[in-house]
Amino acid sequence: MEPPHLLLPLDRTAPAPLQVQLYEALRQAILAGRFPAGFRLPATRTLSADLGVGRNTVIAAYEQLAAEGYVDARTGAGTEVAALPPDRLLAAGPGDRRAANLPSATTLSKRGASLAGLRAPPPVPGMAAFQPGLPAVELFPHTLWADLMAKAARRPLAPSLGYDEPTGEPALRRAIAAYLAAARGVNADEDQVIIVSGAQAGLDLTARLLLDPGDGIIVEDPGYLGARAAFLGSGANLIPVPADADGINLDLAPLAAAPRLIYVTPSHQYPTGATMSAARRLTLLDRAAQWGALVIEDDYDSEYRYRGRPLPALQGMDRDGRVIYLGTFSKTMVPGIRAGYLIVPRALAEKFRLALRVTGHFVPPAIQGALTRFLEDGHFARHVRRMRLRYQDRQEIMVGSLQKHAGGMLLARPADAGMQLAVPADTRDDQALARRIIAAGINARPLSVYSLGPGVMRGLHLGYAGVPERLIGPLVKRLCQAALQRGN
Amino acid sequence: MEPPHLLLPLDRTAPAPLQVQLYEALRQAILAGRFPAGFRLPATRTLSADLGVGRNTVIAAYEQLAAEGYVDARTGAGTEVAALPPDRLLAAGPGDRRAANLPSATTLSKRGASLAGLRAPPPVPGMAAFQPGLPAVELFPHTLWADLMAKAARRPLAPSLGYDEPTGEPALRRAIAAYLAAARGVNADEDQVIIVSGAQAGLDLTARLLLDPGDGIIVEDPGYLGARAAFLGSGANLIPVPADADGINLDLAPLAAAPRLIYVTPSHQYPTGATMSAARRLTLLDRAAQWGALVIEDDYDSEYRYRGRPLPALQGMDRDGRVIYLGTFSKTMVPGIRAGYLIVPRALAEKFRLALRVTGHFVPPAIQGALTRFLEDGHFARHVRRMRLRYQDRQEIMVGSLQKHAGGMLLARPADAGMQLAVPADTRDDQALARRIIAAGINARPLSVYSLGPGVMRGLHLGYAGVPERLIGPLVKRLCQAALQRGN
Repeated sequence: MEPPHLLLPLDRTAPAPLQVQLYEALRQAILAGRFPAGFRLPATRTLSADLGVGRNTVIAAYEQLAAEGYVDARTGAGTEVAALPPDRLLAAGPGDRRAANLPSATTLSKRGASLAGLRAPPPVPGMAAFQPGLPAVELFPHTLWADLMAKAARRPLAPSLGYDEPTGEPALRRAIAAYLAAARGVNADEDQVIIVSGAQAGLDLTARLLLDPGDGIIVEDPGYLGARAAFLGSGANLIPVPADADGINLDLAPLAAAPRLIYVTPSHQYPTGATMSAARRLTLLDRAAQWGALVIEDDYDSEYRYRGRPLPALQGMDRDGRVIYLGTFSKTMVPGIRAGYLIVPRALAEKFRLALRVTGHFVPPAIQGALTRFLEDGHFARHVRRMRLRYQDRQEIMVGSLQKHAGGMLLARPADAGMQLAVPADTRDDQALARRIIAAGINARPLSVYSLGPGVMRGLHLGYAGVPERLIGPLVKRLCQAALQRGN
Repeated sequence: MEPPHLLLPLDRTAPAPLQVQLYEALRQAILAGRFPAGFRLPATRTLSADLGVGRNTVIAAYEQLAAEGYVDARTGAGTEVAALPPDRLLAAGPGDRRAANLPSATTLSKRGASLAGLRAPPPVPGMAAFQPGLPAVELFPHTLWADLMAKAARRPLAPSLGYDEPTGEPALRRAIAAYLAAARGVNADEDQVIIVSGAQAGLDLTARLLLDPGDGIIVEDPGYLGARAAFLGSGANLIPVPADADGINLDLAPLAAAPRLIYVTPSHQYPTGATMSAARRLTLLDRAAQWGALVIEDDYDSEYRYRGRPLPALQGMDRDGRVIYLGTFSKTMVPGIRAGYLIVPRALAEKFRLALRVTGHFVPPAIQGALTRFLEDGHFARHVRRMRLRYQDRQEIMVGSLQKHAGGMLLARPADAGMQLAVPADTRDDQALARRIIAAGINARPLSVYSLGPGVMRGLHLGYAGVPERLIGPLVKRLCQAALQRGN
């Protein structure tokens, strides 16, 4: 089988070398079925003369086609198009791509769908007010941080750049253990510290290593969405247990089987802000022991306490290695750091390390190096102290402004701690309330998104830490105007 | 109930404030059961006089205890120790911690255990030779990179610092789409690009969003360990299918049910180095369509091809949006960058974005900003070009040294591409062989770790890209001495 003539579009002014153009033209012709299996390509000498290109150009293009299996080049027998399955694909032109039916393969897994379905309202782009969890990005010492990071990046540590130490740089783990011992009463040595890329990464790792599909995990109700996402992502069964002004009440746990894990925010319940009482803490540890369960203590913003001193961590009260402690630098520094830490019981430390060797989600060494200096040189403690004062001011302005402008619809009261307020609202539909505010360009999260069981809280979760003092009043005013727009 | 006298150890020279010391001493006494429930603490005035401290100090300590629920402070009725469960915990002193039996809770989940159990031999710390996958860290422009990162960190982009764009900075996604279109024939717009913290993170995310426990995934045999880890981590069933000199051979797939996913390394099979032939590529896409399966194309080191030009990606041949393409900057730059990318089919892009909003594992904005400049300003293309020449030199030296020193035990041959050699060995126990070499302080991975089915390859997987030219000869000599130590 020989073609009448070979029309191959070569463009001598194009940047691509002629051999690449020739290869591509032949390949497209083969794929489109114009040169079927068994079709014999012209001899290199012939084609070179026909096209007016060097013979080496043709040879290179043929060799590339042969290397990829489009043609068979047998010495002496010339170059033939290989037998390529299937005709359907060969005939389909690039234009069919968009028209083709999308395969059912693109439905997510059940797990994936549960993750994609967990929607909090999307944040208003570029607007810090009043997104819960955002710290004061404008007060962070970005220049100092940039210098520390550049210094660390200029002198990379080991040739492996991180693969050697899947749980993090030893110096950073030591600095974190020392900080947590002093500030939070956490009892751990550096081998128990695991550097992770943020609180969410810590939750995901813990869920993946400890939960099998169908395992039960107790979560607070209302409770933190990110944690729920991590546990759902592992295929676990969420067991919501009501949290009140003293934290989670395990007497209300509706348990058929013992849970595998218990997830709590004892210092500052998310989102209510409650502190777990000592009685509840002891009950929690006791029940965990009875059940053979582990406890995840998410201590996400304990540094920001305005009245009393920060409560010691549950981890420090733990007598038999049941508590996994989780903290993050996203709130004490800025979210862009993408770093946090797990403190795991001694009996789990080596197992986590082995698993991390294969999953390998470590924090960039430049960031670990900069963090080590930031902690060791006292910048961290200084920044947290400064922020504590500023956030207290911001909270006062926020509460005052809400009390002034909300006309009784939003019941703002001062909170002892944290970076956001859970503000009960006089409405049956806090989702609609939040949508009105978001439509006015201000972030507001409905409290009801945090509830799983029947006792749904209604109101707004409003972050104030990330909003400069002078902007809070005007923005709260705008928020309240939107909130009051259509009664409720 | 009143105590005879209250012995509380306060140290006026200690750095901790007296109120904190007092709080801590009372708390310990309560937890140790020395002050049982109902025990009435002395009036603040009395204790202040007894201890010689200010009354406000005592009030602050009592308030803290009350806030945490250790005591009940009723106006007029004094301050009583609260009823605290359970006696067992109260009586346990801190000394018991290590003696306590470790709970069965600290066994990993099945998934977690399978991850922790997937052991490649641990790398020799600080030794780049001959760890597969390590690039030439010493040739990377660390100073330039540090400057780009510092510049990006000094001017943080948005107040949310990343939360707004869970799939990555738009400018970086555009730069990656443009690079892949030119270099790899990848057909995608920026909305299909998802920035992830490395190839492993990309595999984990894909597995989590697309695999339910029990779903089947076809993997190459032999094949990449990190991918297996990600799929096992999702509870999927691995279906190993033999890969030969033309890549995976799906005619040998032992399928009871259609798989959900197919994971392949078509440009450069891991670890054999084979290029998947065009026929196999078309068969693969065809079978995927028949099965309703998606394909993961892991293009981990396609930039390093020394003969012929890099083969176009499978993704560019895909007519109906079945291919998820995965790439990484860990091999083209340095692993410490911790960044890679997924190109997902259009029908999946929005679903991935929604799921990422809740799982939130994004790459630090400073690194994204620096990467954008590195790509846009041509540093990336320049670095890859330089490395390609150097790695080719390094491979030649490596192959020559092995042929000179291995005495026929190791059968090194030049490879067309990549950063490591799969070197067959004349041995029945390549694990023992690798252990002898590792004992001599040099990294060597047994090829048998990559095999799942019966056709086990035996030999060594040796990375050469990360080892300076002048060191390769002497290190190979040392490796061969260790390898030949006990005959075999």
